[in-house]
Amino acid sequence: MKGLIMDYPLTTNTILEYGNSVYHHKKIITHLPDGTRHEYSFGDMYKRCKKLANALTQKLGIKNGDMVGTFAWNHGPHVELYYGISGIGAVCHTINIRLSSHQIEYIINNSEDKVIFVDATLVPLLEKIAPLLETVEHFVLINAAQDFTTTLPNTLHYEDLIADQSDHFEWPAINENDASGLCYTSGTTGLPKGVLYSHRSTFLHATTIMSPNAGNFSNRDTVLLIVPQFHVMAWGFPYLCLLSGSNMVLPSSNLQPEAIIKILIEEKVNKANGVPTIWLGVYHALKMNPPKEKLALEEYLVGGSALTKSLIQGFEKDFGIKGVQAWGMTETSPLGTVSRLQPLHDSLSEDEKITIRAKQGTAFPGVELRIVTDDGKVAPTDGKTMGELQIKGAWTISSYFKTNNHESFTEDGWFKTGDVSTIDQDGYMEIKDRTKDLIKSGGEWISSVALESALMAHPKIKEAAVIAIPDEKWVEKPLASIVLLNSDDTVSDEELIDFLSREFVKYQIPKDYVYINEVPKTSVGKFDKKEIRRLFAEGKLT
Amino acid sequence: MKGLIMDYPLTTNTILEYGNSVYHHKKIITHLPDGTRHEYSFGDMYKRCKKLANALTQKLGIKNGDMVGTFAWNHGPHVELYYGISGIGAVCHTINIRLSSHQIEYIINNSEDKVIFVDATLVPLLEKIAPLLETVEHFVLINAAQDFTTTLPNTLHYEDLIADQSDHFEWPAINENDASGLCYTSGTTGLPKGVLYSHRSTFLHATTIMSPNAGNFSNRDTVLLIVPQFHVMAWGFPYLCLLSGSNMVLPSSNLQPEAIIKILIEEKVNKANGVPTIWLGVYHALKMNPPKEKLALEEYLVGGSALTKSLIQGFEKDFGIKGVQAWGMTETSPLGTVSRLQPLHDSLSEDEKITIRAKQGTAFPGVELRIVTDDGKVAPTDGKTMGELQIKGAWTISSYFKTNNHESFTEDGWFKTGDVSTIDQDGYMEIKDRTKDLIKSGGEWISSVALESALMAHPKIKEAAVIAIPDEKWVEKPLASIVLLNSDDTVSDEELIDFLSREFVKYQIPKDYVYINEVPKTSVGKFDKKEIRRLFAEGKLT
Repeated sequence: MKGLIMDYPLTTNTILEYGNSVYHHKKIITHLPDGTRHEYSFGDMYKRCKKLANALTQKLGIKNGDMVGTFAWNHGPHVELYYGISGIGAVCHTINIRLSSHQIEYIINNSEDKVIFVDATLVPLLEKIAPLLETVEHFVLINAAQDFTTTLPNTLHYEDLIADQSDHFEWPAINENDASGLCYTSGTTGLPKGVLYSHRSTFLHATTIMSPNAGNFSNRDTVLLIVPQFHVMAWGFPYLCLLSGSNMVLPSSNLQPEAIIKILIEEKVNKANGVPTIWLGVYHALKMNPPKEKLALEEYLVGGSALTKSLIQGFEKDFGIKGVQAWGMTETSPLGTVSRLQPLHDSLSEDEKITIRAKQGTAFPGVELRIVTDDGKVAPTDGKTMGELQIKGAWTISSYFKTNNHESFTEDGWFKTGDVSTIDQDGYMEIKDRTKDLIKSGGEWISSVALESALMAHPKIKEAAVIAIPDEKWVEKPLASIVLLNSDDTVSDEELIDFLSREFVKYQIPKDYVYINEVPKTSVGKFDKKEIRRLFAEGKLT
Repeated sequence: MKGLIMDYPLTTNTILEYGNSVYHHKKIITHLPDGTRHEYSFGDMYKRCKKLANALTQKLGIKNGDMVGTFAWNHGPHVELYYGISGIGAVCHTINIRLSSHQIEYIINNSEDKVIFVDATLVPLLEKIAPLLETVEHFVLINAAQDFTTTLPNTLHYEDLIADQSDHFEWPAINENDASGLCYTSGTTGLPKGVLYSHRSTFLHATTIMSPNAGNFSNRDTVLLIVPQFHVMAWGFPYLCLLSGSNMVLPSSNLQPEAIIKILIEEKVNKANGVPTIWLGVYHALKMNPPKEKLALEEYLVGGSALTKSLIQGFEKDFGIKGVQAWGMTETSPLGTVSRLQPLHDSLSEDEKITIRAKQGTAFPGVELRIVTDDGKVAPTDGKTMGELQIKGAWTISSYFKTNNHESFTEDGWFKTGDVSTIDQDGYMEIKDRTKDLIKSGGEWISSVALESALMAHPKIKEAAVIAIPDEKWVEKPLASIVLLNSDDTVSDEELIDFLSREFVKYQIPKDYVYINEVPKTSVGKFDKKEIRRLFAEGKLT
């Protein structure tokens, strides 16, 4: 028997209309690369979305199901594009500007983008590959001077495009299961793979992240979106801010620690997101030049890679700012878990508490997790049994875009993350490693992530990346590549071995160390272990 | 183009499984009428739901789509019934014990309940009508002694029913649009009408109410569910507590102010729900016997009728407890709006702030509101233009159960609430009156609710209900029925007229007053204006 409830599709239009009707006075603030600051309201943005919708449908001929690309930093017009494009039933494909030229060419052709909206500052990256793009009919320039010159064909200026359009537009009826956004994975192995979000998954993800146990966002917050809009939709924050009525602060390309600190202070930002690399940089910059007044920042949500215990502790002790570990993947919209303490942890020691906060945490409602061991059995939730993390839920992919890769899914419908994890009795998941980064030495598993986290707690170490290297006796053994905080400093291998022996047993501790200037990173700021392995194989890691 | 996201139905089973996997250690505490206290965990409850599911399907032959009634107060087994019944694909019909015998007979026959689960203490109410029930095959007694005797046919004891069942049960696949629960309206006009909730509406309502701008529920909370489970599913709290990991405290029939205060203290309850009548009682009881220590209670969520400014102020000033006004109807699952202050109100005076908090508030994401004036036009959001409040959303009904009542819906798909309201520029809705309770005097509208709220702020007045009575000159005029706080006290009509003249213009102020011992109330604790009008018409209101 059907319930007798209205058919009310969960679409991005619903989010936009809600933001306008209840929070039209809330602000979107952009810090542009030239140092200027732009501020407007949700209500202003709403009207520009409607102008954009008219321009897309009438001037550019975009239809339901068409792909429209964006190649841009975080700023007001990019938020308008999120809503304007999906609002008319088209799909907003946020192109990751940090991919290689070849990858960018591939994903634009693979997605069949008809129009690309591109930041003037990023035009050179597209000019190189423009002749190879098969489907793009127009390039629309954002923040370009009127006399801007480019070799890109069929260009328009964003402001010209929407200037003479009406701010009235009747949204079409959209099925909530239709696609609203497309992101490609960062492609550390092979070509990037497309992940096609639906209106429903976007809405449910944003609604859930608002809740107190998750991101805890309300109309009292001012949120800095450091995670780029070209990276998994900035973790859905442009959607959730409209639902929660949080002011949105957008840094465009200003991602240097000093620039971020300036924005945090000027805009009285109290919440933010970002990968650990960013926060590590901000932490060290704050240590070098401590701010005169306490920052308004209360907490930062971290994902992408693991937040180390030492960074959690440093931020909290030195600046009273809380790091909150979250976990997810492009394939999971992205957020799947968050690690926050509960009353049941109140009696634990500070160290035990940090250990829990450094885990990836508990699943959100709408997300299910399980660990499957090598023998195909579901592992007990004992916090010890390691196996592959598998996930299912209301915002997890069922398939990659235009790709038949059954190997990523189980027969009973779970997505295989490729992470090696445990889940404890209270549901806290901990990633031990990527399947391919786990080190198997003498038949025993060693977690590279655990070693890295421990090494980065050393007072002289800024970054540490651990990979497996071949060993005659043990088949594999760990190699640690170390970046020192102060390049004039030195640290001996023996000192590090001794340091690690407080936490690890002998066979787990690397005997081999290399000291480098910087850990190679992927396009989304994660340690690029594939690159480190390549450098080692070519004898360039010394 | 479809998004490539898993089909993950939003069902009550998802909620139960989530509560068990992440919050199995959280508590459900029941205070039984005999003074005993029962405590168990979400994990314990989960196992009993599975036993119940086995019993329902195998012992009682309940099938997908069957109706199963409950006739019970708030307690652990009643929560188990919510999940166990809807979990197998049947529909949980929570029968309002406060309806008249005739209405109860009508709704049981109308819904075609196959089994009714009934509290031992409530059996007498059913015994009277049992011979008239056409579809009920079994009565299952909850909390009944083994030697309990009853004239009800085919009885079983709840604990016996589930005792020998397995706590393993594979939930069937359920379409999220299928019915999960049935509630009848309280029927102040005509026969009660059935409202059939879906799994999806139940899930989305609960998820949304968790968010900081709404109910703000987390795993740090201990929540007292004063709203009966037989009244709009206790406002969805048995669902949201499992999603948010909040401890659930259930008072069974202990709804006297002193009993509630005892529970608040003993269980360190920090959040609660309830109708204004309950909170008015609690407030006066606290004033009479101020607690030795500050209560843990931080805020109470109120709906059903308007929270008066004087009660908001009294609770806050005297006990530091915040009253939060919400609004909804059985037809809207029920919660549609809540009134909380935002940063934009920070600079207002205390009085202006209270005025906003006494409004019904802003819509939740997933809910849309509009005001339609007598001429059929959508009113501007100016906070002044009155008209009928209409609502649509993801948990609003599309039709009543087994009833063709097109008059409750507009042609473009909105539900007509029958409330006369305004919406201001910030989206705050304020109910001025029920359409039928509005007084039209000399061609001008007078709001009975506004008069009642003002009168109840008078220090000598406990309750005030205002109705329209016929008048030769003005067609209608207001009559105020007054309950004094202290029955030995007196107050003159002139004193009240003078008191009201500070807020109202002359034509709005009642000239007629009657002093009564108690305002008649509906089955859900609202002022029963139909009954007051009847008493007046029969000359019994003096």
